[in-house]
Amino acid sequence: MGVLKLIGLGLSYKFITEIALNELRTSDVVYADTYTSLTCGDLISRLHQLGINPIPVGRDFIENNYKKILELLDQGKSVGIAVIGDPMIATTHISLVTEARTKGHQVSIIPGVSVHCYIISKSMLSSYKFGKSVTIISSTDYGKIDTTPYKVLKENLERNLHTIFYLEPNMSARDAVSLLLQMEKIEEQGIINEDSLIIVGQHLGCDDEEIVSLKIKEIAKYNLKSPPHIIIFPSKSLHYMEIEGLKWLMK
Amino acid sequence: MGVLKLIGLGLSYKFITEIALNELRTSDVVYADTYTSLTCGDLISRLHQLGINPIPVGRDFIENNYKKILELLDQGKSVGIAVIGDPMIATTHISLVTEARTKGHQVSIIPGVSVHCYIISKSMLSSYKFGKSVTIISSTDYGKIDTTPYKVLKENLERNLHTIFYLEPNMSARDAVSLLLQMEKIEEQGIINEDSLIIVGQHLGCDDEEIVSLKIKEIAKYNLKSPPHIIIFPSKSLHYMEIEGLKWLMK
Repeated sequence: MGVLKLIGLGLSYKFITEIALNELRTSDVVYADTYTSLTCGDLISRLHQLGINPIPVGRDFIENNYKKILELLDQGKSVGIAVIGDPMIATTHISLVTEARTKGHQVSIIPGVSVHCYIISKSMLSSYKFGKSVTIISSTDYGKIDTTPYKVLKENLERNLHTIFYLEPNMSARDAVSLLLQMEKIEEQGIINEDSLIIVGQHLGCDDEEIVSLKIKEIAKYNLKSPPHIIIFPSKSLHYMEIEGLKWLMK
Repeated sequence: MGVLKLIGLGLSYKFITEIALNELRTSDVVYADTYTSLTCGDLISRLHQLGINPIPVGRDFIENNYKKILELLDQGKSVGIAVIGDPMIATTHISLVTEARTKGHQVSIIPGVSVHCYIISKSMLSSYKFGKSVTIISSTDYGKIDTTPYKVLKENLERNLHTIFYLEPNMSARDAVSLLLQMEKIEEQGIINEDSLIIVGQHLGCDDEEIVSLKIKEIAKYNLKSPPHIIIFPSKSLHYMEIEGLKWLMK
């Protein structure tokens, strides 16, 4: 029987762990799912430097079209799937895992530093006060705005919880807040306005990483980097230590 | 001016990242906060092997009694604080960070693989469906049971969210579920019973790590390892992929 390893690379080459490297090195074949998440361009070249030459594959290959992987497992091979961040957080490798296990193969999951905990850590906000997270998508099939992120935010705010908004890989924080303001116009619950404070994370884990706290109206004139971006919408009431922490992220 | 670095070591020696090692190596003085979290005993010896000899300190030194650290910063030194897991998640180093920054020192935070995201990743549950987390404490000053964890669970269940229960460092999953059942008797909301399914993580990140899903009544006869333990209480309604994932954790 084969061994399937889902290996978290962390957010960038600087966050690769000893165990991830060992598992990559001891795999017969390594695929790299570098399309689901963006990162600094140096991650794959760092792997090459370390003697690991993964086969780059797209999301579809890992999620739906993984016959090739199962064939290798059936041949008794060990197959490593290298994933930016953590292999099981905010991604969907579970159908591959399930299918491999059902066929009797061994599966091991190697967690890595994921953007979810990374932004919590860097935000200075209390990790105990984060509620449900949600992804902002640009538009639905019919061009209508999906207000799910707004509803999640409302429920979190009602419980005095912080909200992490994941953005689509190429969505900027500016586009995301514009969508949130449009959701406010549709839902009219009065929870988002131009004065709402948000935290924007840009290029997390990269050398030019930036985490800033600013009002939504300030984002229009703020010099944003290219995506990937991520946003935190803090709870209404903050502990004084959270306020102290946020002061250092203010622009 | 000095440089204060809060450096996440990850859950065990296998999860140390390149950046953590570099930051430890380039610090003039390294303190290790190894008392806040438990881990496999080999983390400090692994640091010694890597040429890093941290000064072990207790929680109080870092949280309240950090005059010595500020003195070193005032002398222009770089001071690394090595923390198991992630330095800002479920711990409280923020007052040290704030004081150092207020005095004009540079502060850098190096996230590590934290138990929070680690157990989400290993649980096979959807990371988007986790609500607020909470710590179960054995008893309050007056011997009365604090039912806060129960209330958090109830709110999460009402929104169909999963709940992570952190336990006190020496608390076993058996003691924790016993407390949860006592909270049920006090609050009487009918959300926890002997048939409730939970996920127990034991020795996460260590060679003898185990993650199992079992009913509360099964825990009495289950051969648990020593703490540290962590518990997930899943939401009532699960996606079919979550059910598939959970099957593999069943005992």
